[in-house]
Amino acid sequence: MAWRGTGRLVSSKVVVCLSGGMDSCVTLAMAAQAHAVYALHFTYGQRTAKRERQSFEALCDHYAVAARLVAPQPALGAMGGSALTDTSIAVPTEDSGSSVPVTYVPFRNGQILALACAWAEVVGAEAVYLGAVEEDSSGYPDCRESFFDAFTVALNEGTRPETSIEIRTPLLHLSKSQIVGRGIDQGAPLGLTWSCYSREDVACGECESCRLRLAGFAAAGVNDPIPYASQPR
Amino acid sequence: MAWRGTGRLVSSKVVVCLSGGMDSCVTLAMAAQAHAVYALHFTYGQRTAKRERQSFEALCDHYAVAARLVAPQPALGAMGGSALTDTSIAVPTEDSGSSVPVTYVPFRNGQILALACAWAEVVGAEAVYLGAVEEDSSGYPDCRESFFDAFTVALNEGTRPETSIEIRTPLLHLSKSQIVGRGIDQGAPLGLTWSCYSREDVACGECESCRLRLAGFAAAGVNDPIPYASQPR
Repeated sequence: MAWRGTGRLVSSKVVVCLSGGMDSCVTLAMAAQAHAVYALHFTYGQRTAKRERQSFEALCDHYAVAARLVAPQPALGAMGGSALTDTSIAVPTEDSGSSVPVTYVPFRNGQILALACAWAEVVGAEAVYLGAVEEDSSGYPDCRESFFDAFTVALNEGTRPETSIEIRTPLLHLSKSQIVGRGIDQGAPLGLTWSCYSREDVACGECESCRLRLAGFAAAGVNDPIPYASQPR
Repeated sequence: MAWRGTGRLVSSKVVVCLSGGMDSCVTLAMAAQAHAVYALHFTYGQRTAKRERQSFEALCDHYAVAARLVAPQPALGAMGGSALTDTSIAVPTEDSGSSVPVTYVPFRNGQILALACAWAEVVGAEAVYLGAVEEDSSGYPDCRESFFDAFTVALNEGTRPETSIEIRTPLLHLSKSQIVGRGIDQGAPLGLTWSCYSREDVACGECESCRLRLAGFAAAGVNDPIPYASQPR
């Protein structure tokens, strides 16, 4: 059992996968309501790794999360195949339509969940939280509910008999504007987050991640507190 | 398509998870018969990482494998929970009985497969080979057929619609002595491999990995070509 900063006694542990983006921030805000949080930050040689790490630390500070694990896996970036890790592939500024976009990082959530579940097993956490979004997202295959369901079976087959871990994706079926709304309801520090795929000084406002985020804030009728180089009209 | 060193034309690509141990060596020998091999070596801060890496490189040299990916994930070791990564937990020299032994590394095969499948997706490989052994092994939960079956579903749900990857574990239901026999049949360079959990100069002969290996050679009626500090009588 552990006392959280808020003074409430929480007995259950959970691992929260915390990239530093808006979705993982809102997920952390939800998880921290009821659980002692173990925060996992996974990097893979992506363009904005330094800025995302900064957001991870700031969010952990905000929620007084002491248990932090930073896990670089540069091999995932070194193998290429994604605009987020291969600078010879441009980050697109337009929709990819119905196909999987070039910003897809091969089986990224498989890597993140495998490590998060290992940590959950070691510390005795009951669940892993991940801020994946299926509906109003980029169409990544590893953000689908069917993937999380299948991975849950695999992880419980591949860990100790006494280990039982849930994968919780509370944002999976929310729109970006609903996520903004939840974040504001929770008092989540959205100004500390970073979502841009391209830049680390100010958000580009043009990549698909910036566009999804800005559209979410616009639909929610709220101003995004982070600075942008430009914003679509 | 690619010409292998043997002069045969092979068109299909596979990723082979190659720790440098005997089982992964025999698996590589089998895979290299029919496929162009992409060799993945995963480390996690284990005691014998340096010696295992040496075996990995020697085995790749032997089979003329040019495509090598070395992927350190020290966070898996840093989270502890295993005698292989935590030097405060002794490597046992006796059977753990029916329970999962302290040498179990939490969800290690989950990590390895997640990365191997990502690489398989990027290079267009049809399968991932892993030298897991279920029957005559240490009783690790992530070496069970039910885990590999479940992970196969998860990986194909979590990758591109056009991606289809098999997980192949050709040793899964073999005894250690049968594995020694297959290795010899295949002409596998078993003298280049390393299985010991404890030492890097000579194999200790006492840890569970050495004992399983030595018992396998004894049952096959073959001398193990690697040097041992001592051998059980």
